[in-house]
Amino acid sequence: MGQAVNMSKARPASLQDVQIKDDFWSYYIDLVRDVVVPYQWDALNDRIDSAEPSHAIANFKIAAGEAEGSFHGMVFQDSDVAKWLEAVGYLLHTRKDPALEQIADDVIDTIAKAQHADGYLNTYYTLQEPGKKWTNLAECHELYCAGHMIEAGVAYYKGTGKRKLLDVVCKMADDIAVVFGDGPGQIAGYDGHQEIELALVKLYEVTGDSKYLELSRYFIDKRGQKPSFFEAEAEARGWTSHWHKGRIHLDDAYFQAHLPVREQDAAIGHAVRVVYMLTGMADVARETGDQSLIDACRKLWDNIVSKQMYVTGGIGSMAQGEAFSFDYDLPNDTVYSETCAAIGLIFFAHRMLQIEPDSRYADVLERALYNTVIAGMSRDGKHFFYVNPLEVTPEVCDGRNKNYNHIKPVRQEWFGCACCPPNIARLLASLGEYTYAVKGSTIYSHLYIGGEANLQVEGANVQLTQKSSMPWSGNVIYELKLDAPSKLALALRLPDWSASAKITVNGKPFAFEDKIEGGYAIVERTWSSGDVVELVLEMPVMRVRSNPLVKYNAGKVALQHGPLVYCVEEADNGAGLSSLMLPADSELRVSFDKQLAGGLQVISANALRLEYKQWGTQLYRSDASAYLAPAEAKFIPYYAWANRGKGEMAVWVKERV
Amino acid sequence: MGQAVNMSKARPASLQDVQIKDDFWSYYIDLVRDVVVPYQWDALNDRIDSAEPSHAIANFKIAAGEAEGSFHGMVFQDSDVAKWLEAVGYLLHTRKDPALEQIADDVIDTIAKAQHADGYLNTYYTLQEPGKKWTNLAECHELYCAGHMIEAGVAYYKGTGKRKLLDVVCKMADDIAVVFGDGPGQIAGYDGHQEIELALVKLYEVTGDSKYLELSRYFIDKRGQKPSFFEAEAEARGWTSHWHKGRIHLDDAYFQAHLPVREQDAAIGHAVRVVYMLTGMADVARETGDQSLIDACRKLWDNIVSKQMYVTGGIGSMAQGEAFSFDYDLPNDTVYSETCAAIGLIFFAHRMLQIEPDSRYADVLERALYNTVIAGMSRDGKHFFYVNPLEVTPEVCDGRNKNYNHIKPVRQEWFGCACCPPNIARLLASLGEYTYAVKGSTIYSHLYIGGEANLQVEGANVQLTQKSSMPWSGNVIYELKLDAPSKLALALRLPDWSASAKITVNGKPFAFEDKIEGGYAIVERTWSSGDVVELVLEMPVMRVRSNPLVKYNAGKVALQHGPLVYCVEEADNGAGLSSLMLPADSELRVSFDKQLAGGLQVISANALRLEYKQWGTQLYRSDASAYLAPAEAKFIPYYAWANRGKGEMAVWVKERV
Repeated sequence: MGQAVNMSKARPASLQDVQIKDDFWSYYIDLVRDVVVPYQWDALNDRIDSAEPSHAIANFKIAAGEAEGSFHGMVFQDSDVAKWLEAVGYLLHTRKDPALEQIADDVIDTIAKAQHADGYLNTYYTLQEPGKKWTNLAECHELYCAGHMIEAGVAYYKGTGKRKLLDVVCKMADDIAVVFGDGPGQIAGYDGHQEIELALVKLYEVTGDSKYLELSRYFIDKRGQKPSFFEAEAEARGWTSHWHKGRIHLDDAYFQAHLPVREQDAAIGHAVRVVYMLTGMADVARETGDQSLIDACRKLWDNIVSKQMYVTGGIGSMAQGEAFSFDYDLPNDTVYSETCAAIGLIFFAHRMLQIEPDSRYADVLERALYNTVIAGMSRDGKHFFYVNPLEVTPEVCDGRNKNYNHIKPVRQEWFGCACCPPNIARLLASLGEYTYAVKGSTIYSHLYIGGEANLQVEGANVQLTQKSSMPWSGNVIYELKLDAPSKLALALRLPDWSASAKITVNGKPFAFEDKIEGGYAIVERTWSSGDVVELVLEMPVMRVRSNPLVKYNAGKVALQHGPLVYCVEEADNGAGLSSLMLPADSELRVSFDKQLAGGLQVISANALRLEYKQWGTQLYRSDASAYLAPAEAKFIPYYAWANRGKGEMAVWVKERV
Repeated sequence: MGQAVNMSKARPASLQDVQIKDDFWSYYIDLVRDVVVPYQWDALNDRIDSAEPSHAIANFKIAAGEAEGSFHGMVFQDSDVAKWLEAVGYLLHTRKDPALEQIADDVIDTIAKAQHADGYLNTYYTLQEPGKKWTNLAECHELYCAGHMIEAGVAYYKGTGKRKLLDVVCKMADDIAVVFGDGPGQIAGYDGHQEIELALVKLYEVTGDSKYLELSRYFIDKRGQKPSFFEAEAEARGWTSHWHKGRIHLDDAYFQAHLPVREQDAAIGHAVRVVYMLTGMADVARETGDQSLIDACRKLWDNIVSKQMYVTGGIGSMAQGEAFSFDYDLPNDTVYSETCAAIGLIFFAHRMLQIEPDSRYADVLERALYNTVIAGMSRDGKHFFYVNPLEVTPEVCDGRNKNYNHIKPVRQEWFGCACCPPNIARLLASLGEYTYAVKGSTIYSHLYIGGEANLQVEGANVQLTQKSSMPWSGNVIYELKLDAPSKLALALRLPDWSASAKITVNGKPFAFEDKIEGGYAIVERTWSSGDVVELVLEMPVMRVRSNPLVKYNAGKVALQHGPLVYCVEEADNGAGLSSLMLPADSELRVSFDKQLAGGLQVISANALRLEYKQWGTQLYRSDASAYLAPAEAKFIPYYAWANRGKGEMAVWVKERV
């Protein structure tokens, strides 16, 4: 066990070393621990009467011989249990919880019993289609489920020191390494849904066994080679489909298998697959130093964030295939922007930060986190968005127009395809890992989230206490404690939403203007215990506009304040948001609303409303002159939308230039 | 043969009595005769190499025993032949053409041979599924195909006096009257695609046999009764589907079978089905005087035109199901607006005019005709739109976003489901019927299309010559010739696009302000040969706005000039039409462009373009201030769009209020 530390990469903080204590974020972390994870455990056990049954735990019990019955649920139902266990591992890593650990240990016992003697582990194929394993990689998510179980095994081992699930997933991964490869009798293919690539690198990191890194690289390198693996396996299977009785329709681009990964220029196909793949690519690139793979990651990063990302950090604009469509095609109302895809983008950004600490990755990470991820969950931790629209008209979503029916105007209790809720849980439970990284003698502060961190920096123990007023204002204070004075650097991110920053060290101004590297202000000195660094980031309300090639946003503006993107809701502004217009020069007034969604800042402005005199019942008129009536507009943070029943919502508002 | 004339209804002009000679419309009529009908004959015979094969004639030849082979094409492929024959009937009704008549006679001989001894006629069930006839009314269009063949038989009889096809369809309808009904052994059901209802009334009108009118009424009255007929027939069939291997999914609303027709409040489901049904309902209502049926027609008419119709007269806003979605849901870019649905709306309007001559019906008829119908066909008569969008971005339609892929940025050669091209042909070939109607001693002039009409008005022969400058200006001149002076009325429609009209009779002003009935100016007097009536309609360029409940058009304006709705195209205005803005007070200058699409009026205006200083490659910016740059906007009639290659197009343009 253990591994050689690669000094050239930025190591993220370990969860046991970061305790988040933050006015904004502690609520969410506690919510995951106190509500989300217990609620999801109930959901996995079909104890939520009003939600769609999961049957995920039952499947494992049946496969383990502990219960009678048959498989129910999606072919990838196992992964919900794995993601839940992974979240539990993170929670136990930050704080002991014997009762929770006992529940997890019990389900791990069940999982171990469900594993085949050769290491194979998948309840669908065990129960539903025995003898058919590894015959439909394109559609049936076996390697995806395996990847999630590996992530669970690694997290649980790191969180508890217990090896049982880790041993299960090592045995499973060993079997996969035998099954897949270019040798005789092996399957020279790869997964239909990327996930195992990143998981295998985690397994390599925790075990030090390079076989897992090699297997990950194998899947990545193999992907998109010609002839098409998915076509070959479909041919061998007789072109059957898991999903319907007809001939399988294969679109290699949906699986990012249309080209070798290094030759792909634009993100295309299923969005979660894309960002999970890129996360694994960045992992392998980091561990192997493969420059061509780093270049491929950078190329697709640039494409996503400069041509295919919503202002909320959401990605995947198309419901069909839950997919990227094409550059600048970012409709607000037929949008997909799956919560899981934003989480995957955060994974990818986090891995790029490990390769090259650059604020452009952290900026996007922060954008997706503050906007799409926490927008995806209600304040009660029991309701979730799978799809995160930027414009909603409830009667359209609920109506007969199928272009909109995937959009829910209020958060739902659970989903038949329940990938998003446990994904939110595992991300928030591991949020500490995203706050800091250490590279050489530099501590990178990626996210401004208060708490205490214990970091090892070139042999020195640094205890770093951060107090942050974000997202409501841009004041951050660090206090350092060290065993002895040490020379090291604190790298403070200068976010893309702040044009001006001030730094003081022990109350004295620190000139950093010529010490900016990759968007971070490098505060390097010999530090002593008790030193205090203060960062003040200017946080104006910003009028954000879209590249003119995004036709849906032409003539529209969105408001952003710090990391938070804002929106207008019918509850504050009345119905007919499409007639609301924000003058380009109106004052934007920030105030705090203690009542709404746990308290938040709202933005008010004098606005205009496009009106007509006495419209009547006609559909079209040429004699109704339009005029602009004074109106008051009120914006709330997008993450807090849909907390006051069904109503219209819009991020982008017409601008009166 | 022959029937009692119902004096309370407005009889449309007969085709043999109207010769269209019009600067604008003669081109289209000649195009149908010289190009469209011959081209479509080639298409039906699979002689257009670059188009999808039809196989429609081949199916009949095989079913007739004249050729070997098997059925190919849609289950409703027969209807393309029927619609073509119907168009031929109309053409021969207006002008003799022995060569064309010979081709039609030959195909009628084939059709007659394909008919079963009991009268049944359908090549799909004859060749592909013998023994399964009448087992899947919901999906398989047997009564729809029968309806089109009846329309062909009636048109061909009226056009040529030849009874052969009429006898075929009478025998077929007689068989249907035996098969369907509430008696023992009969099917107590109705069609999945309405069409036969209106056709049976035509058959009743030409034969005088009330059995056909009763059968039509039976289908209409039966529709939507509980328990669901489609569920019952699916149950009897084992819930199989014609279209896929799975269990049939029935949505009775798709077929307008969710409620009895008199209880339906809003147009819902497949748009063509809706308007064909309403046409048949109006036919039966007119012939039977059924007031509850007239009320049902009015209710659904009002719903369509005041809540669900595009400004172009297009209907059905949703690609999924080619259907109406719900009130005020009129997206411009994901639109459907099928050409056939607009034609069906014209049929419905035409029938309502026969019940009650009211200009609101003729206004919509004219709107759909000038905008959607002729937009659906290219100037060469060989390319067609199935879908008629109001906003197009070619890279969106051609891209991977499936919400847009049904929209074609240029007209197509032919379609696998080729319902629209022959529908355009049969409508234009019979356009004369739509121009005039006679009710009592009143001649209604519904459409301002030049030509000569010979009308029987209470025993008097009236020869009416119309000269019209439309759609370019609002001047219409009528000259009357009569055998002897007669007292009768000329009812001139006052279109919804003109706020002011002047009428002179023999050069002297005619005060009609207190003589307006149902939107028609009633010019009643004793007429003599040589009398001249001149109508001058004010035709300003209108700025049309949408009901504020249509969110897609909020803050936007469309231009209309006379009956023509205009649009902007990339060819004139550059790319990025979403940034174009028309000031509410800018002058709208009309000029004639001789080159474009046979010559047409364009509208120019000083406009604005929303621009940003040095945008660069970023997706979002808060530091790029927007400004309005002067721009020239050029609008062309919507019907002439997509004649200059692929490019952006928009009917609704942002308005600067």
